[in-house]
Amino acid sequence: MKELCGIGVGRTMALGPVLRMPAALSEPELALRTTDARAEQRLVGSALATVSADLLQRGEAASGVAQDVLEAQSMMAQDPALVDEVNARIDAGSTGERAVFEAFTEFAARLTELGGYLAERAADLHDVAQRIIAVLRGVPAPGLPKSQTPYILVARDLAPADTVLLDPLLVLALVTSDGGPTSHTAILARSLSLPAVVGVDGADELLEGTTIIVDAATGRITVGPGSVELAAAEARIGALAAEQHIELAPGALRDGELLPLLANLGSSADCAQAVRLGAEGVGLFRTEFLFLDSQTAPTVAEQQAHYTSVLAAFPGQKVVVRCLDAGADKPLKFLHGGREENPALGLRGLRALRANEEVLRDQLTALAGAERATSAELWVMAPMVTDLAETRYFVELARKLGVRVAGVMAEIPSLALMADQVVLACDFVSIGTNDLTQYTMAADRMLGSVASYQDPWHPAVLRLVKLIGDAGTGAGRPIGVCGEAASDPLLSVVLVGLGATSLSMTAAALADVRAELLRYTRVEAAQLAARVLGASSAAEARALARDFVANSL
Amino acid sequence: MKELCGIGVGRTMALGPVLRMPAALSEPELALRTTDARAEQRLVGSALATVSADLLQRGEAASGVAQDVLEAQSMMAQDPALVDEVNARIDAGSTGERAVFEAFTEFAARLTELGGYLAERAADLHDVAQRIIAVLRGVPAPGLPKSQTPYILVARDLAPADTVLLDPLLVLALVTSDGGPTSHTAILARSLSLPAVVGVDGADELLEGTTIIVDAATGRITVGPGSVELAAAEARIGALAAEQHIELAPGALRDGELLPLLANLGSSADCAQAVRLGAEGVGLFRTEFLFLDSQTAPTVAEQQAHYTSVLAAFPGQKVVVRCLDAGADKPLKFLHGGREENPALGLRGLRALRANEEVLRDQLTALAGAERATSAELWVMAPMVTDLAETRYFVELARKLGVRVAGVMAEIPSLALMADQVVLACDFVSIGTNDLTQYTMAADRMLGSVASYQDPWHPAVLRLVKLIGDAGTGAGRPIGVCGEAASDPLLSVVLVGLGATSLSMTAAALADVRAELLRYTRVEAAQLAARVLGASSAAEARALARDFVANSL
Repeated sequence: MKELCGIGVGRTMALGPVLRMPAALSEPELALRTTDARAEQRLVGSALATVSADLLQRGEAASGVAQDVLEAQSMMAQDPALVDEVNARIDAGSTGERAVFEAFTEFAARLTELGGYLAERAADLHDVAQRIIAVLRGVPAPGLPKSQTPYILVARDLAPADTVLLDPLLVLALVTSDGGPTSHTAILARSLSLPAVVGVDGADELLEGTTIIVDAATGRITVGPGSVELAAAEARIGALAAEQHIELAPGALRDGELLPLLANLGSSADCAQAVRLGAEGVGLFRTEFLFLDSQTAPTVAEQQAHYTSVLAAFPGQKVVVRCLDAGADKPLKFLHGGREENPALGLRGLRALRANEEVLRDQLTALAGAERATSAELWVMAPMVTDLAETRYFVELARKLGVRVAGVMAEIPSLALMADQVVLACDFVSIGTNDLTQYTMAADRMLGSVASYQDPWHPAVLRLVKLIGDAGTGAGRPIGVCGEAASDPLLSVVLVGLGATSLSMTAAALADVRAELLRYTRVEAAQLAARVLGASSAAEARALARDFVANSL
Repeated sequence: MKELCGIGVGRTMALGPVLRMPAALSEPELALRTTDARAEQRLVGSALATVSADLLQRGEAASGVAQDVLEAQSMMAQDPALVDEVNARIDAGSTGERAVFEAFTEFAARLTELGGYLAERAADLHDVAQRIIAVLRGVPAPGLPKSQTPYILVARDLAPADTVLLDPLLVLALVTSDGGPTSHTAILARSLSLPAVVGVDGADELLEGTTIIVDAATGRITVGPGSVELAAAEARIGALAAEQHIELAPGALRDGELLPLLANLGSSADCAQAVRLGAEGVGLFRTEFLFLDSQTAPTVAEQQAHYTSVLAAFPGQKVVVRCLDAGADKPLKFLHGGREENPALGLRGLRALRANEEVLRDQLTALAGAERATSAELWVMAPMVTDLAETRYFVELARKLGVRVAGVMAEIPSLALMADQVVLACDFVSIGTNDLTQYTMAADRMLGSVASYQDPWHPAVLRLVKLIGDAGTGAGRPIGVCGEAASDPLLSVVLVGLGATSLSMTAAALADVRAELLRYTRVEAAQLAARVLGASSAAEARALARDFVANSL
């Protein structure tokens, strides 16, 4: 028996056999072909067909976005231009593997240069090339292992493409040797409510089939546990499962103070699932989907019908709707003109709505109409608000058009810095920790090379949250959090300690956050938050928080 | 006699006759040609030749960048593809004016789509089209009026292209009806030390040749002044001119506290001019120019020779050098790979240097060597620093390589928020207000549609400056300011009140800032700063400051 350590994600535990993600294939050597060109081309042609058929079949087994991605990949494997490129390279003396590698890499580079949506497809193309080369080599294709029984997935790191087909009923936990607390693996684990430990030194040596215990709360992995450890783990897993059944009680602290736990939703289709998972309302309803794919903005009547269907799913409960958050990175035909060098710093959110006020007026009118038609309590907020003047503009317009509760999102550092003024001019503030972190750290949250900066545990971000929390407490205004941070159980306690009065998250995270909050009183949460504010980095903040929980409570 | 009001830029005054920028031409009507196609094409051909020759001639009279821009424009007017497009449109029934307008607009749109450098050329193309259409109409071409005697330039707003040829010896002041305190006009006025009033209601009605008094300190314009006003203005202008002669005294407050005034420089060629204008050293020496146009980074020896020549110009004085600040928006072959969706939020500044540490090591080694070879006091700082960990990394590396004084730039909100920790780990902090404003407001400082957010008077920015100032005061560390804000005389007093211990600016602004600082004691500057922090917007902050100066001192 031995122990490995890493960064835990979540607070639950799992026990099961290891299944490994096959490692990425080595780059095919730049060697001259020794076989006949025609024969090599036939081999490659057959590999292309095999991969194409396999992807198509997986696509049929999937649904939604996953299906689209897999079907597109299936077509890539048979793309005539690519096939011609591969064959030409073989004619010129390349091996089949090398020809596939070069042709796909070059094509991917061209896509990357085009940027945007097409650049994202480059990764899919790379995956297809890997599968073809695996077939040519007769080795397992990279990708999720196949299993009919539950397992713990061990990998170097997980990419979005790897996890499209991940079955949450079969995967008990995730363990990776690379990756940090904000890696794709960690985000995925949170959204599926799976325990995970990332950045585990020694994970690469875990053997297929070995039984391990994964403890997300401590970040420890027990390899080949003895009967004592197994019994303890089973008891703990049972206790954690029992906790899940308290999920439909309202969110609260140990001292009984209520702390409403709400869901982040992107369409009315997700309402039923959120209710089932115990959401006490909606803390962030995104409205972009209504506007995408439209040449013109939807009419007031169309919008009102949709908002009514959402509000009707939450009778007597709070539903916080965010007005359209569009920008040059999410362009809408009727809203936008110019290309921007830095769309994240451009004319977006309330700025874009203000420049197209009729769109904002229609949306507010439709929302007010929807509230009158249901018993839900509608709160409406503006995205990307800078300061008092913009807050006043939005709140006055919203009230004039019949909205009763109007607030602003805190995503821009200036709003947090001016929170003492802003809270007096609106009914509530909701903190979007994802963008707030991006701007506070000046690091694009979608850019891999600066991904390590996108960590809401950074004390700079938490100090801004405190400014907002203090302002809210002082003025008696509710302060919600609706960013990724709210779904991290321990961080959610810190946020409450900084002054948050409600938390909104992906519905799958509700149970974990609810259970964690119940362990602390208001005073303890505030003590925890105060401790964390003195840290100098996100990692130190996390460590201080764990240490405080382990030793001071 | 009457008065107009606007937003003053600077603190000086001017008196002289109005010359107006010709208004932009109206868009040529979409009418069918009634003349013969060949004749119309000949007319247009002759207009193209006239404009091309005129631009070439202006280019010969200019130098440097201005010359390059004008010569490129001259070639645009004769571009064969464009000429063909124009002629084809005339053949199809267009008037000559309309054909020129459409062909140039379409070509400009294509350039804009290509983005980056080419997109910036679209404005030049627009300017060429305007000149051609003016010749066809027989009206004055848009652009600077021609004059041999001094005048006050009145315009709707000034674009960079308009001002390339502006002669600071002939232009006494700038007055615009549009534009705000951070418009190109305002920035130009500051860099040329010209008084300006922008956003003047009624400026469009000022008649050519009218005598006006422009008072930048109050934002007032007196039209057709009487003899009393004229005498008062002349006395004030004389007194202000006399103040300029105290310029070579060290910067100080009224109570005698020294406040070093330094220059921002981008190459060693500017050193002599900065010394002449009274710079007490260099507060920001940018080093990018040494790295541009290089396939490889310059060697240690090449860099050391250059840094030595800069330091040698400031014997016994402080020279603050900023390490290479590159990113995807200023790509360098040896430093960068990928395209970024939001380069301002990307791998830039210290982040990029850390990923290419040999470049940083070479630069620090060369700087330390240059200090040993001269008597200047070298301070070295890193751009785009996030927090304590990055500060420690830079300071330790700099010291190890022989740099004696090492600090960091405060441009990212997180650095300001963590300033209490950062000041303890470095020798000084220098605030870059331009980027700090950009990130705090989440508004691209190069993007026109969000230009109004780029205002360092915004109290959110000033509150961050206060966090840095308080940290510096508490730890006894010098806090410099080297952004645009330091060259605004009244704002410079606010910055001192918030804790800045030195100010660095374009050398032309030194005299105005020096004179303004001399009007305040330390206590008064702190009172002014406290007043401004309570404002809710940049405009209110400015108004509160002016009001405080007028009524409380």
